[in-house]
Amino acid sequence: MSPHKAVRLARTDPVRASRPVMLAIAGDSAAGKTTLTRGIAAALGQDRTSVICVDDYHRYDRAERKQVPYTVLNPACNYIEVMEQHLQLLALGKPVLKPVYDHSTGLLARPVLIEPGEFVLVEGLLPLHSKVLRACFDVTVYLDPPEEIRHGWKLRRDTAERGYTAEQVLAELERREPESAAFIRPQRQWADICVRFAPIPGKEVEPGTPLSAELLLRPTISHPDLSTTLTDDDRRTVHLKLIRDADSRPVDALHVHGYAPREDARMVEKVIWEQLPSGHGTPMPETLGRLADGTRSEPLAITQLLLVWHLLQARPTP
Amino acid sequence: MSPHKAVRLARTDPVRASRPVMLAIAGDSAAGKTTLTRGIAAALGQDRTSVICVDDYHRYDRAERKQVPYTVLNPACNYIEVMEQHLQLLALGKPVLKPVYDHSTGLLARPVLIEPGEFVLVEGLLPLHSKVLRACFDVTVYLDPPEEIRHGWKLRRDTAERGYTAEQVLAELERREPESAAFIRPQRQWADICVRFAPIPGKEVEPGTPLSAELLLRPTISHPDLSTTLTDDDRRTVHLKLIRDADSRPVDALHVHGYAPREDARMVEKVIWEQLPSGHGTPMPETLGRLADGTRSEPLAITQLLLVWHLLQARPTP
Repeated sequence: MSPHKAVRLARTDPVRASRPVMLAIAGDSAAGKTTLTRGIAAALGQDRTSVICVDDYHRYDRAERKQVPYTVLNPACNYIEVMEQHLQLLALGKPVLKPVYDHSTGLLARPVLIEPGEFVLVEGLLPLHSKVLRACFDVTVYLDPPEEIRHGWKLRRDTAERGYTAEQVLAELERREPESAAFIRPQRQWADICVRFAPIPGKEVEPGTPLSAELLLRPTISHPDLSTTLTDDDRRTVHLKLIRDADSRPVDALHVHGYAPREDARMVEKVIWEQLPSGHGTPMPETLGRLADGTRSEPLAITQLLLVWHLLQARPTP
Repeated sequence: MSPHKAVRLARTDPVRASRPVMLAIAGDSAAGKTTLTRGIAAALGQDRTSVICVDDYHRYDRAERKQVPYTVLNPACNYIEVMEQHLQLLALGKPVLKPVYDHSTGLLARPVLIEPGEFVLVEGLLPLHSKVLRACFDVTVYLDPPEEIRHGWKLRRDTAERGYTAEQVLAELERREPESAAFIRPQRQWADICVRFAPIPGKEVEPGTPLSAELLLRPTISHPDLSTTLTDDDRRTVHLKLIRDADSRPVDALHVHGYAPREDARMVEKVIWEQLPSGHGTPMPETLGRLADGTRSEPLAITQLLLVWHLLQARPTP
């Protein structure tokens, strides 16, 4: 009868082994979150992986947002406290009734039950916004493409898939910039891994060459020892360099060259796939490295494989 | 980074005083839950009271239910575990994003944020179904009208407000009976107070006379000492009798006579209202005792006042 009783968990003794491994992929609109997430889910296995987009926690639908003084990038435009509750519950292996924001109509719709699999991949604008949110994750990623590249991606996607005109997208990007600076980009500091897909400055490449990737591997989690895994040949494709981050913190920068011969890159992928923690032993899925336009990016595939390595590594030991 | 961190509560030190008082009103379809709840909310004050219908936790919409082998009375037809989460959170004073089932369309709709007031009134088919649910409440009520009276109420409401034909309602009542027996009526045993509105058998009354009320006051919570509050005159309207319940447990039965002169009943209401715990001192609201058809039932008003007494009594002391 006393309210004190109410705090008890529904199930007694939630065993550590039943808790999922949680990955966050944060980044601005059209930074490539869905593309990155899709390949990771395929590599882990769709049947044991739950994918959640936290943009579903938008507080207002598209029409209502016209009456509020902020954009969806603002935490005030999202149910952050409910997002915190739900991610905490998922981290404990419990189901949640997740709200649904329909990007194609701009409406908030009927919620869906999410029963967490062995892995929960959480992508969206603000998954690293608060300390409570960050504490829910085993591995955190921030996607950090150069702004001009991201703007091009957003223009292409929002006109093709979300029913906006080019003018509307450009105006929206401008309107969002202050809140992007205030709320989205600060999340970069909290990521274990920052990923930047970009051309290498000054380097001439053939048309159709994938963007290179720079992965900042922060010492907040243990990274695989690539020095023993990769051969000297592999280093033409992938190399590691100790640098200082913009805030002067030391960090390992892993460079994956988009202009490397595809066969060499595929060899690196194979080496990483075969080094994945035991018990994985399935063939490497075709969807790794697949871009929205159907072409393949080896730097993307290698990034996805590295994250798969982390997720398998973080699995609770029974 | 470890999943263990994720279990921490979002806010540190949720103080006992900020937790709401929680009331459950359980009962079968059309047992009078909404009517009872409405007057209690009015008496407590709409601004400090949240009302929740747990039938919003239906798992399927009306069309989908045609494809499942059970009715809405079956826990399998409801998100019981999510209901448990949400009531636990509300009992701690936290907001929840509550699903919405629209009775007029039969569709599941956009969820709404509920930020609990000082009092949370929870009504529905299954709020006392599980131990976790029951532990969330300070006071629990089961509405237990005779089946023939409830069938009449359901027929009237579902044809007038929910777009069903009389034949459909009668067929549905028959279809639901096994699950009513299996899941709804067993909740009666868990209630602190069982309320039955019914005519007194063998008693001839004028048309328009309100139904009498029998309230079983179980010793699971402390009830007001009516023996000191009520005068001998009042006992013509209200009297208390020690009986054995159907399961042979001892229980106080409070009888409120619908055929008593209205002035006498109003006097009893006034006496109870004035005895309410200090700090309430507002005029007695007009909505107390109001039935769905707009007429007034003094036994209903007295029942509502007794529950208001319990909720004010259960408030945490600062």
